[in-house]
Amino acid sequence: MARRILLLNPNVTEAITQTMVEEARRVAGPGTTIVPATARFGTQYIENRVEAAIAGHAVLEALAEQAPGCDAAIVAAFGDPGLFAAKEMLEIPVVGIAEAAFLTAYTLGRRYAIVCLTPRLAVWYRECAEDHGLAGRLVSVRALDVPPSDITDAKAQTGRKLVEACLEAVDRSGAEVVIMGGGPIAGLARTVAHEIPVPVLDGVSCAVRLAEGLVDLAPRPALRGSFARPAAKPSRGLTPALRAWVERDDAPE
Amino acid sequence: MARRILLLNPNVTEAITQTMVEEARRVAGPGTTIVPATARFGTQYIENRVEAAIAGHAVLEALAEQAPGCDAAIVAAFGDPGLFAAKEMLEIPVVGIAEAAFLTAYTLGRRYAIVCLTPRLAVWYRECAEDHGLAGRLVSVRALDVPPSDITDAKAQTGRKLVEACLEAVDRSGAEVVIMGGGPIAGLARTVAHEIPVPVLDGVSCAVRLAEGLVDLAPRPALRGSFARPAAKPSRGLTPALRAWVERDDAPE
Amino acid sequence: MARRILLLNPNVTEAITQTMVEEARRVAGPGTTIVPATARFGTQYIENRVEAAIAGHAVLEALAEQAPGCDAAIVAAFGDPGLFAAKEMLEIPVVGIAEAAFLTAYTLGRRYAIVCLTPRLAVWYRECAEDHGLAGRLVSVRALDVPPSDITDAKAQTGRKLVEACLEAVDRSGAEVVIMGGGPIAGLARTVAHEIPVPVLDGVSCAVRLAEGLVDLAPRPALRGSFARPAAKPSRGLTPALRAWVERDDAPE
Amino acid sequence: MARRILLLNPNVTEAITQTMVEEARRVAGPGTTIVPATARFGTQYIENRVEAAIAGHAVLEALAEQAPGCDAAIVAAFGDPGLFAAKEMLEIPVVGIAEAAFLTAYTLGRRYAIVCLTPRLAVWYRECAEDHGLAGRLVSVRALDVPPSDITDAKAQTGRKLVEACLEAVDRSGAEVVIMGGGPIAGLARTVAHEIPVPVLDGVSCAVRLAEGLVDLAPRPALRGSFARPAAKPSRGLTPALRAWVERDDAPE
Amino acid sequence: MARRILLLNPNVTEAITQTMVEEARRVAGPGTTIVPATARFGTQYIENRVEAAIAGHAVLEALAEQAPGCDAAIVAAFGDPGLFAAKEMLEIPVVGIAEAAFLTAYTLGRRYAIVCLTPRLAVWYRECAEDHGLAGRLVSVRALDVPPSDITDAKAQTGRKLVEACLEAVDRSGAEVVIMGGGPIAGLARTVAHEIPVPVLDGVSCAVRLAEGLVDLAPRPALRGSFARPAAKPSRGLTPALRAWVERDDAPE
Amino acid sequence: MARRILLLNPNVTEAITQTMVEEARRVAGPGTTIVPATARFGTQYIENRVEAAIAGHAVLEALAEQAPGCDAAIVAAFGDPGLFAAKEMLEIPVVGIAEAAFLTAYTLGRRYAIVCLTPRLAVWYRECAEDHGLAGRLVSVRALDVPPSDITDAKAQTGRKLVEACLEAVDRSGAEVVIMGGGPIAGLARTVAHEIPVPVLDGVSCAVRLAEGLVDLAPRPALRGSFARPAAKPSRGLTPALRAWVERDDAPE
Repeated sequence: MARRILLLNPNVTEAITQTMVEEARRVAGPGTTIVPATARFGTQYIENRVEAAIAGHAVLEALAEQAPGCDAAIVAAFGDPGLFAAKEMLEIPVVGIAEAAFLTAYTLGRRYAIVCLTPRLAVWYRECAEDHGLAGRLVSVRALDVPPSDITDAKAQTGRKLVEACLEAVDRSGAEVVIMGGGPIAGLARTVAHEIPVPVLDGVSCAVRLAEGLVDLAPRPALRGSFARPAAKPSRGLTPALRAWVERDDAPE
Repeated sequence: MARRILLLNPNVTEAITQTMVEEARRVAGPGTTIVPATARFGTQYIENRVEAAIAGHAVLEALAEQAPGCDAAIVAAFGDPGLFAAKEMLEIPVVGIAEAAFLTAYTLGRRYAIVCLTPRLAVWYRECAEDHGLAGRLVSVRALDVPPSDITDAKAQTGRKLVEACLEAVDRSGAEVVIMGGGPIAGLARTVAHEIPVPVLDGVSCAVRLAEGLVDLAPRPALRGSFARPAAKPSRGLTPALRAWVERDDAPE
Repeated sequence: MARRILLLNPNVTEAITQTMVEEARRVAGPGTTIVPATARFGTQYIENRVEAAIAGHAVLEALAEQAPGCDAAIVAAFGDPGLFAAKEMLEIPVVGIAEAAFLTAYTLGRRYAIVCLTPRLAVWYRECAEDHGLAGRLVSVRALDVPPSDITDAKAQTGRKLVEACLEAVDRSGAEVVIMGGGPIAGLARTVAHEIPVPVLDGVSCAVRLAEGLVDLAPRPALRGSFARPAAKPSRGLTPALRAWVERDDAPE
Repeated sequence: MARRILLLNPNVTEAITQTMVEEARRVAGPGTTIVPATARFGTQYIENRVEAAIAGHAVLEALAEQAPGCDAAIVAAFGDPGLFAAKEMLEIPVVGIAEAAFLTAYTLGRRYAIVCLTPRLAVWYRECAEDHGLAGRLVSVRALDVPPSDITDAKAQTGRKLVEACLEAVDRSGAEVVIMGGGPIAGLARTVAHEIPVPVLDGVSCAVRLAEGLVDLAPRPALRGSFARPAAKPSRGLTPALRAWVERDDAPE
Repeated sequence: MARRILLLNPNVTEAITQTMVEEARRVAGPGTTIVPATARFGTQYIENRVEAAIAGHAVLEALAEQAPGCDAAIVAAFGDPGLFAAKEMLEIPVVGIAEAAFLTAYTLGRRYAIVCLTPRLAVWYRECAEDHGLAGRLVSVRALDVPPSDITDAKAQTGRKLVEACLEAVDRSGAEVVIMGGGPIAGLARTVAHEIPVPVLDGVSCAVRLAEGLVDLAPRPALRGSFARPAAKPSRGLTPALRAWVERDDAPE
Repeated sequence: MARRILLLNPNVTEAITQTMVEEARRVAGPGTTIVPATARFGTQYIENRVEAAIAGHAVLEALAEQAPGCDAAIVAAFGDPGLFAAKEMLEIPVVGIAEAAFLTAYTLGRRYAIVCLTPRLAVWYRECAEDHGLAGRLVSVRALDVPPSDITDAKAQTGRKLVEACLEAVDRSGAEVVIMGGGPIAGLARTVAHEIPVPVLDGVSCAVRLAEGLVDLAPRPALRGSFARPAAKPSRGLTPALRAWVERDDAPE
């Protein structure tokens, strides 16, 4: 059961890609190869609608080039920029790290919370849950007052404060599951789980599990509906790989 | 990564247990052992609120006896009788076959439908989706007009009609994913997938994938909230194993 | 207008049955006979999903034996275990004490709250309101921090604290109606009503009123839909009365 | 247990008042006196927002004069014009005939429908259910294509068509309870109940039951929240009784 | 582009009409004439359901007389009494000052709050947002603890406290837009905007903009649906102008 | 009252820009200058999530260059790609043509429908309404079975069919307002309005009205919340203007 899973970081910071890939490889099952990728353009990390909109395009551009040969892809920024477009684009399973964490939270409790690094992220993460139709059980999104000065060192700088935020989510909001949201803190949930009296989840590890499961389940790609590959269309100004996808002749129907 | 997964059939028909176990073993990953179990009391199959309420108790009774030694449990009747109680009862992951199919549908499309054998099942399945907080994207539940005369032969008797119902769900309700609901038809989705232009799911295989993923993810059991093990309480008229659980001294707090 | 109303306590504690029957008889109209019944198996009181699932079966077993000859039945544990199944089972009106209180709250205000004895009850009661489709106006569920040491003495031990909780529900949550939830405190609402500046309700008295009204209204039993009596089905391990109901020959269609 | 219940018709047609009073007296319990009243100004019957807005004022004017001495009041136009204001105005229970039917439908099934005489009524009735927070289980509102030529003869002219509409609500919309909406057809539900395979309700009889139950339950009037009597305020152009209420000195707080 | 816009105050206090007209004229575009009107009957100001129900009738009576010759009408009490009836009644655009503020808030942010003078207003304003289907993004309604002693001097008496309430709405409820609700404080938002770190809106100015835009857009009046002019109907006790509208012969279909 | 309004077409087809600009200029008020712009990269028109994600980036890139000097901007593709990011980016009002049509529909009726050129557009438009929190009153989205062969000639090729779709939306779905969705058909609503018995709207004209109104209202830009300008952040691969915005030093806080 060999599986190649593309882990695509939608921001341009390779240190964050590296952090996530390490966690992904730690949890991946036997036979799984994690293939790293980083967006060609965009911002250092992604925190608001402007940066997410830029990243949405970057995700598609990267997938057009790098998804061929992979069995599944992970859009690895919590907030899932470009995810629904990516699912529409590719015939392999594509999952987001927020999506995977939300779905896992649904099976582990009735009320979940998210903790994250900044207030702008909090807004974006909530909207992400709404977009997935999975905000009905989201009881709280808690952000740190003081964000990390160096996003690539977020785990070390903010780990203790994030644990406190998790405990508050349990005590004050009645959260039964807590998600630690954000690619830069991938792996933190695993190392602090024993300090938090409810299940605490990490988007990257949930996404690896979900992607592996979908590869093995092997659902057929949609030929109908809004996730079937759309018809070709003339374009302008796209990279060759993305243009080839948009203008291709092999589109169904 | 050896995993023992209890597959518990909440009705009393062992032929249905057998059908589900076969499908479960077909899709299980390397290292997974499927441990079959069947309810001690209840009905031939489960179709309405009365039968589901009886099954809810039977599920708990069976889990109290048979879950020890397992790494996860599957409540294997679509409709998930007793599932939330079972999650509360056990510290290992417990998943339902309806729940697993719903969560998988959420990642594969925006609108899903269920097809099933009888109108009463249709009501129960819809209420099940609502209980999970996952009915927001359920666009249709389609039942056969003529149920099978022999539930243990449902796949042979009704397979073609169920495929037609799937096609109608796509054409008329705009379903982007279809779930074939019902333990007795476990495996049918796999064999007819090529006839249906969208992903078609089977509760048993989705549940095996989800249970395996959760075993590997190993979230810590809840010590707080409504899925933490409750305090002990005096009881009357329960089987020894269930009584031992209810009256135990080791309950937290 | 003679009416026999079965008041069924889904837990196994006869002292609680007695408390509820006394309140029911106090408020019952002329011509109403309250017929007490207590579950044969289950727990001392019912506080969580495990206990409610056991009680759901116990309710059906008791109704199969004791409902014949009655004009209506009350499932008398706040949280309404087994209620929807009981409505499906019987052709006489069946009401729950939570349901009756919720419906009464809807006619008396726009925002209601529930106060109750323990945090686990709070979760169950909220889910009960959701199951009834009546949580849209539920603004708060408040539980005591310290539950009573003896549930059969709950009124005496916790009465003052429950009144304080009611006042908080009004002051902090803007409740316009307060429900005192829980069979063991039946009657408390009546005795403390003058201390609380909004209507305060008791499930038992609301249920007696609702059951009497339905007996007099005499709606015809459903022959269609999910509350029509379901078709017979083979069973195993049920008590004679419940088995007779499940396997009967007279079921419609 | 003597109870005086004011039955107030918000339109100006006394023949409709008479029809409703007859039905109310038929179902009223021993000890209940039905006191009839008809709006002083307004329209022949009430069918749209304009007419309902006029009726809202007429209801308050009539209640200010005629409610004193009564134990409860029924606002007897399906659509409940002025009902929430009336609840705020009076310290006795006030119920609407639509409200009473909706609450009864909630206890008898999971999906209810309304049938009514005209398409404009259908819109108003749906908005009424939404205002009560009770539209979540409303699956259909069916209007006749051809309204009656004489509203006071609506039962005779349209009875058969309304029965057909009820059957369609069951067959096509899956209604488990049907409400026959509209004061002019009060009593029709009772006479055709045997033709419809699910419970069929009539607003007037449900309202009498509900009002009687509330009189006997005797909840204390609200001193807080939006149903407490508001503070006095200067006015202009109101009738003496309504002005006395609006400008009174005895208002709380 | 000459436009005559009727600004109708649904309460009976001409000083409040004057305040609103001044603000309306300040913001109106070139070519717009603001035509003032005040209700003939009702209360000094409008704060609860009773007063709003009376005002609903007064609005229709006033429009029947004074709307002819105007190009649009503004119902100028926050809470929009009688607004939906007025839209149904007239073929010119009719907008409410609450409605206009809510719609403007939707385009300026994702979460809005309302600040207002009294707790009763807070309830009414929230229900108003619900009636418009625009409460989904309403995160808070904040009322002053101490209402103004003289409503016609509300801006001077309570201006500072209302600004504080706005700041709290931003800080504690995360409001991204704040609406200052209430006709008597028309214009306050404009003068304090620089003190509040998010857009702050005033119903009157939003309504003038919306009404002007609709006049220029000139949508055709509805001939179908619930906003088409209803059929004529006999009436009793109405003023000549309103009776002429209700009983007219020119109603469609 | 001179106003410069940027009308930005998010697809790359200048003929569509031209169609929309003509309609915009036809409806613009005195003093309004419409400034046309077209995306630098992307697809011929925008129909699905992939194309919308690309357009989201293109919109931001174009605004970064061309918005300076304008008083408001219109994102002129129905579906509003990149709109929320654009609102976050700029301190001038930014409106979408779908958003403007939805808000206008809310004030003109209770149930609205959208008609559009293709089934993929129908999905995207519905999701757009959900993103705006304005889908609660959307009763139908109707797409043509046969899309136009030449999108720039869509009005001529599909005009009659779109009118028929509007009539169906009224007759079968009870729509009280119909929106003709899609930039390429800008102006069609105006020319066919007399054929449709309810108000029919066009995104471009609604957006011009809304933008003009917001310019005149002049709300202050947000300094707090998720529409305040975000902090600067390092970037890679962006155009100079967009990079200057992302990395700027003048960002608040």
